[in-house]
Amino acid sequence: MVQSNIIPNWLIKRAYLTPNRPAIFFHNYTMTFQQLFDEAKTVAEKLHHVGVQIGDRIGVLLNNHPETIVLLHGLQLLGCETVLLNIRLQDEELLYQLNDSEAIFLISNEKLIEQHNGLKNQWDHPIISIEQLRQEKEKSFPLTEQFTMDDLCTIMYTSGTTGHPKGVMQTYGNHWWSAIGSVINLGLHEGDAWLCAVPLFHISGYSILIRSVLYGIPVILFEKFDEEAINETLISGKATIISVVTAMAQRMLQQLGNRSYHPNFRCMLLGGGGVPLSLLETCKEKEIPVFQTYGMTETASQIATLSPEDSLSKLGSAGKPLFFSQLQIVKEGVQAKPTEIGEIYVKGPNVTRGYWKREDANRESFTVDGWLKTGDMGYMDEEGYLYIVDRRTDLIISGGENIYPAEIEQIILSHPHVKEAAVVGVFDAQWGQIPMAFYVVKEGKNVDEGELIRLCREHLAKYKVPKRWIQLNELPKNASNKVLKRLLRKWVENE
Amino acid sequence: MVQSNIIPNWLIKRAYLTPNRPAIFFHNYTMTFQQLFDEAKTVAEKLHHVGVQIGDRIGVLLNNHPETIVLLHGLQLLGCETVLLNIRLQDEELLYQLNDSEAIFLISNEKLIEQHNGLKNQWDHPIISIEQLRQEKEKSFPLTEQFTMDDLCTIMYTSGTTGHPKGVMQTYGNHWWSAIGSVINLGLHEGDAWLCAVPLFHISGYSILIRSVLYGIPVILFEKFDEEAINETLISGKATIISVVTAMAQRMLQQLGNRSYHPNFRCMLLGGGGVPLSLLETCKEKEIPVFQTYGMTETASQIATLSPEDSLSKLGSAGKPLFFSQLQIVKEGVQAKPTEIGEIYVKGPNVTRGYWKREDANRESFTVDGWLKTGDMGYMDEEGYLYIVDRRTDLIISGGENIYPAEIEQIILSHPHVKEAAVVGVFDAQWGQIPMAFYVVKEGKNVDEGELIRLCREHLAKYKVPKRWIQLNELPKNASNKVLKRLLRKWVENE
Repeated sequence: MVQSNIIPNWLIKRAYLTPNRPAIFFHNYTMTFQQLFDEAKTVAEKLHHVGVQIGDRIGVLLNNHPETIVLLHGLQLLGCETVLLNIRLQDEELLYQLNDSEAIFLISNEKLIEQHNGLKNQWDHPIISIEQLRQEKEKSFPLTEQFTMDDLCTIMYTSGTTGHPKGVMQTYGNHWWSAIGSVINLGLHEGDAWLCAVPLFHISGYSILIRSVLYGIPVILFEKFDEEAINETLISGKATIISVVTAMAQRMLQQLGNRSYHPNFRCMLLGGGGVPLSLLETCKEKEIPVFQTYGMTETASQIATLSPEDSLSKLGSAGKPLFFSQLQIVKEGVQAKPTEIGEIYVKGPNVTRGYWKREDANRESFTVDGWLKTGDMGYMDEEGYLYIVDRRTDLIISGGENIYPAEIEQIILSHPHVKEAAVVGVFDAQWGQIPMAFYVVKEGKNVDEGELIRLCREHLAKYKVPKRWIQLNELPKNASNKVLKRLLRKWVENE
Repeated sequence: MVQSNIIPNWLIKRAYLTPNRPAIFFHNYTMTFQQLFDEAKTVAEKLHHVGVQIGDRIGVLLNNHPETIVLLHGLQLLGCETVLLNIRLQDEELLYQLNDSEAIFLISNEKLIEQHNGLKNQWDHPIISIEQLRQEKEKSFPLTEQFTMDDLCTIMYTSGTTGHPKGVMQTYGNHWWSAIGSVINLGLHEGDAWLCAVPLFHISGYSILIRSVLYGIPVILFEKFDEEAINETLISGKATIISVVTAMAQRMLQQLGNRSYHPNFRCMLLGGGGVPLSLLETCKEKEIPVFQTYGMTETASQIATLSPEDSLSKLGSAGKPLFFSQLQIVKEGVQAKPTEIGEIYVKGPNVTRGYWKREDANRESFTVDGWLKTGDMGYMDEEGYLYIVDRRTDLIISGGENIYPAEIEQIILSHPHVKEAAVVGVFDAQWGQIPMAFYVVKEGKNVDEGELIRLCREHLAKYKVPKRWIQLNELPKNASNKVLKRLLRKWVENE
């Protein structure tokens, strides 16, 4: 029988197939796949020595660094489930995710542990630093030689329109099918190298690691987004593919000026929210091979991407679903006609099987026949090309980070003198969108804007703190007393 | 849950994704994927009209032609299982395969039906010609929108060391994993086009059809091998990849002379038996990108292929197993050490689940943990690269066709005056190997060589008829009375 549910451990296989190919470039440092495997095995043995057991669920709070890649593969070798934590979150937010996911170890580094020193007192499980691990002894264990497609590989948190963030469960199969769907669309060239300046704790970054070991191509890793250094890499021809969000692409183009990228550079994969047509047109003029894509944590990265031959003729479209995935537009409960706007539903082996321990959310988010309702709005043209009209009505995407207004509103409302609050995303030239807050104060009370900012900073990652604040006498509402955020946004736009 | 066992019907999906890309080039004729789908649907509806039902098992006896490709996809749309028949077989051989496979229709063309006119009288089921189908009405049916990996797609017959040919069951999953394993090794370029001058009824040809629809690249189809026309296509740059066997490569190189192939030509996939090192060295000199590969009907084409970076440094090796497959060398029941010669065992999702209705052969051929014993001999070097020493001791590979001596020996032994017979493969500059017969006549009897040739021609495909005949007084045997074919071969070589 075909065991289509089993795949080899991709790093072990890759190190066996092409041990000497480069796996990671980081500044002037190179690591081969053999070295990556050896180091991942070593770090896994060190983790095992400090008490991590096969199959444990482990939180990881780390910035982009080769050691992070090594660690993430090490956890796969140990058969662990990895909870990827956003380093920009506040202690409170991290604690929620650690507790909710039932992680029993947290791996971070000394700097981040110090920045989040509240965790130590409030979380009952061991926090291990990368620095400490380096000094540890090793304890051998049976390597995870193969992966079962349905086994959980990672959990990444995403917020919803209401309530707490939800853990998106990503299986080995999700990651694997995503990478295979991508290669069939984008192709694979000898000499390919994927530039990663997006966070490894996001699906945009983590998925590059999977593609790297499956395809046998290097990751050119950046600690953080640096348009000058990235442009130099793309001009030199060293990188052939890059994953970006709109804000990154804009800054890159501005810094690039009149120069051109190397002809080897064959794909700027542009995802993560609304893309201004002007940006796409500039790319077209400059012959930058931009491929708009649509994806999310729940689809283990891309689910639709424009094909090479359509990148010019279908400007503004996110393309068609990848080979193994499906898309449909649903309007008032039925499939929309071409060009009709509706909610985007997605399905396929790269789509999450659900939110961690959130049966309620799963019932709400999935149809009985397995379609995930994304909450995003879009339409398909007559030829089946997807156009994104709006990400989830509420969702604010700021420099590639998802911001859910509900989370911020809860914090503002926790102020004893605030009566009502509404947060919306407004256009920003640098970040795409930024969060902006409207609030109503209880009668006879006074609330200072600075006070609310301090409150938010205390509880929220910095990028979530509203950049503009407006006090109103009351919020605009519809008949059923729902805040009309649309009106608030329009009001700001017309301002 | 991830449905990793279900894939979309690859042709339907491909026609939806890239309808206007070319699917087939044949002489000056081009067919797009949309046209291929439309025509495949039409032919399937015609078949349905003449009585073919969803899921029926259908024999196909056709030469390379766009209509054959259309038909093979049409049968997949109908959810039929296809038994691919070698057009060079004799009626008797075809009858055996049709009866054994329990096919209930045979699709062929008028010319081949006339050539095999014995079938009509001896086979109880309908024989449909392509020409007749063209005139048929259509009857619609629910298209097979998706494939289940474990479902049977094709059966191809292969002979063993003893007894009748065996039907190798190839599932959709086998074909699919084979194509994915290949793309991860060989890559996929915009503009790729796969030249197919190998028979579509062999796995080498059929697998090109699957890759074409999965990758969205055209097949450049040839009716038969024609080194001049093929060289022109490769010099023009229109084809980027070609599948060949040794005899083809040799004739191509000879015809090529001092000319060079186009730089677009990036892969000559060379399989199907022993490859003389001199051929590889000539390719190296001429900078022809040759990739030696190892595969068989049972592995749905390639299971090991040399990687681009190793094609020069590991000359003579068939490379490492593809990403999802495994290889091991077994000597005296245990895994051989590096450089030690043993039997090649293979495993993976591209490997057949067994021979059709041959529980005995399946028990013999598979280990309890799912390894297929290929019968081929080889070794791995210290770095894990496979070297083929000898295909199944007995197997003769002549111009890419597998010839099993046992089948020929049975025919020779059916002559009333023949006492013993042994057929071996001997070196031939044009075909790689040709079959040669040794026979012993019963006491007091006389058998003419021409008589035996006539007997063979009556029952066997022409390519199987021994080209040289030698009468002996007795065959060399070992203690357990087994014919020492090794000695016979050596004797011919020293001659």
